Amino acid sequence: MIYLTRRERFNAAHRLFRPDWTDEKNSQVYGKCANPNWHGHNYILLVTVKGEIKPELGYVVDLKILSKIIREKIIERLDHRNLNLEVDFLKDKIASTENIAISIWEELEPETRKLEVELHSIKLEETENNFVEYFGS
Amino acid sequence: MIYLTRRERFNAAHRLFRPDWTDEKNSQVYGKCANPNWHGHNYILLVTVKGEIKPELGYVVDLKILSKIIREKIIERLDHRNLNLEVDFLKDKIASTENIAISIWEELEPETRKLEVELHSIKLEETENNFVEYFGS
Amino acid sequence: MIYLTRRERFNAAHRLFRPDWTDEKNSQVYGKCANPNWHGHNYILLVTVKGEIKPELGYVVDLKILSKIIREKIIERLDHRNLNLEVDFLKDKIASTENIAISIWEELEPETRKLEVELHSIKLEETENNFVEYFGS
Amino acid sequence: MIYLTRRERFNAAHRLFRPDWTDEKNSQVYGKCANPNWHGHNYILLVTVKGEIKPELGYVVDLKILSKIIREKIIERLDHRNLNLEVDFLKDKIASTENIAISIWEELEPETRKLEVELHSIKLEETENNFVEYFGS
Amino acid sequence: MIYLTRRERFNAAHRLFRPDWTDEKNSQVYGKCANPNWHGHNYILLVTVKGEIKPELGYVVDLKILSKIIREKIIERLDHRNLNLEVDFLKDKIASTENIAISIWEELEPETRKLEVELHSIKLEETENNFVEYFGS
Amino acid sequence: MIYLTRRERFNAAHRLFRPDWTDEKNSQVYGKCANPNWHGHNYILLVTVKGEIKPELGYVVDLKILSKIIREKIIERLDHRNLNLEVDFLKDKIASTENIAISIWEELEPETRKLEVELHSIKLEETENNFVEYFGS
Repeated sequence: MIYLTRRERFNAAHRLFRPDWTDEKNSQVYGKCANPNWHGHNYILLVTVKGEIKPELGYVVDLKILSKIIREKIIERLDHRNLNLEVDFLKDKIASTENIAISIWEELEPETRKLEVELHSIKLEETENNFVEYFGS
Repeated sequence: MIYLTRRERFNAAHRLFRPDWTDEKNSQVYGKCANPNWHGHNYILLVTVKGEIKPELGYVVDLKILSKIIREKIIERLDHRNLNLEVDFLKDKIASTENIAISIWEELEPETRKLEVELHSIKLEETENNFVEYFGS
Repeated sequence: MIYLTRRERFNAAHRLFRPDWTDEKNSQVYGKCANPNWHGHNYILLVTVKGEIKPELGYVVDLKILSKIIREKIIERLDHRNLNLEVDFLKDKIASTENIAISIWEELEPETRKLEVELHSIKLEETENNFVEYFGS
Repeated sequence: MIYLTRRERFNAAHRLFRPDWTDEKNSQVYGKCANPNWHGHNYILLVTVKGEIKPELGYVVDLKILSKIIREKIIERLDHRNLNLEVDFLKDKIASTENIAISIWEELEPETRKLEVELHSIKLEETENNFVEYFGS
Repeated sequence: MIYLTRRERFNAAHRLFRPDWTDEKNSQVYGKCANPNWHGHNYILLVTVKGEIKPELGYVVDLKILSKIIREKIIERLDHRNLNLEVDFLKDKIASTENIAISIWEELEPETRKLEVELHSIKLEETENNFVEYFGS
Repeated sequence: MIYLTRRERFNAAHRLFRPDWTDEKNSQVYGKCANPNWHGHNYILLVTVKGEIKPELGYVVDLKILSKIIREKIIERLDHRNLNLEVDFLKDKIASTENIAISIWEELEPETRKLEVELHSIKLEETENNFVEYFGS
């Protein structure tokens, strides 16, 4: 069993807020992250899959294919987007790093299963000082 | 003469567009950077000043003071903000990395002069692959 | 269950030595790290906590509060300090990266418990080439 | 139990191919990585060992010794080498990041056992976007 | 006048040698960099152009176009290639970082002139510890 | 003319203070950097030389020789040292990043002249947020 990681990036706008709260309440809870005019980040996404090496090929999975799937299923839908307004799989969710990471897991897990590897973790870096990791449960 | 650099960071939303153009025209010229719903970045700002070492102190300028000024005059006004909507010194400007860097120069130059050092350059990194530098003219 | 990491930094002096050994013996065992005149590092600290996402808030723990606790309980006591002479919770310990990491765990674990998250790991980087990780046992 | 990591680097040439396939077949499967004239990488190797802290010494293992072993057993045999042609322990293997990582594990595991620590993982970064991790089984 | 930099990467094999020297002489002069079986690097290329901001557009040059030209004229010809054997514009040159950087300048300078910006510098990083910069003369 | 840079690192203790001032005065001027018990840093040193490419060799200067000189003349004298107490060429100087950079220039400049290249700059990074550059006058 070996673990393979692909790093991708996307740049997006977001805010932390609950639509059922006033701006004052959102600001009190989320601070400057609740700014109604949005802010944004250069997100770094690390997708780790695990599996046996295919002995006739020398690798767990073709990285070109893995990267293509991450770009099609995730990056193209998040990059240069507003994470609160424009991403179907984040609809009605608070756009926290935690929730985004879990949603990315849910989008990618069926895809990696088709590739006959197991999705091991989603790591999502919001800034150089803050990141989350999700292992599927 | 020695050059001293302080690195600071801010996370902000922006878009590239001209209000006198249609969305179609903006999208044609600026591509996904024109997204009307905004996107964002973790901007990295490097402020370089130059001057003689003060022999009785061993430094060009007190970094604590330089950092404090950069934070008060720039970071607090840009961090977790929408660069198109909320920053007085970017009003009516296209929020390109180039324009932001020049505007930061204009804000900081009078401040560094008060510190009796010369502002040498503003370097602004938008992503790990794109950055600009401005030297004041 | 999701894992959340906060990165902080501190700059400190230290040396590796045992007070019951001669300088010669310390130098023989620890090499240049035993220098009686001290040396120092820019330490990088990564604190990882884990927990369930609070569904009404979208996060595991408020990062502002987590960061504040790390700064108060760890960074303010280590930054610009001599790790052998000035840190109560390192007293009588060999100031190795291993021992510092474990001591940071012991200081932070009661605090994270108050936040109702579980401390998962302390990662401490001494240089770009050397780091340790501790998981609490 | 604490985990200690040492980072080392080597620069090498390689290609992905099977000698029993034609150049066309190799190119079809491995793309530009199959280039018969080779390409190369700055590989980054992270070796993680785990063990109890030796209380009389304050560390798990002497990093100078661990680093010396990694250099002698791995770096000197891989650095500025052709991984397909010149490395005995990679002979008859497809020179994928996965296979190189596993082979490094097999070379290092007996050595770390002599040091009375347990080899925990081999992480091998091929580029800033691609890396693998192996935990011994 | 503002300076704009685009960062790109390529992975390639090379060796330092003169074909009119014996392997012994090459090895004596270039050390392990002369290995006849090649070695390789993850090269990082930083292309800096300078010019006036186009006031109606807010930028010096469209980064999408600049990046496209660098990829077509440089990256596609160097990435996953053998720099000594497969690159027309490096033919008959010693494949040193210095010579590669100058040759990249010569390839790109006519292209940036067509974009009505001035090529300012080519920075080429061979490893995290070694890099060169060329300013055109 | 081409510019070649070599990156080296050293870990050292220091403090900012003037021996003719009281601890109170030093602390008032230099803040926590004046701590009488020292603190320390992982310094990163970038030495840039410039010159013509030697056409028969393909490089400006042999990097192995340049690196050896930097290590012998600078790194071995600063690494794992107390910059205030143990470095002859810093004696009686305030151990600021500015002064250290200039003193490194003065030590290296005669050496690079012997190599028939010109020393262009000394860049010294004290932390990831603070660095200085010196160009010789």
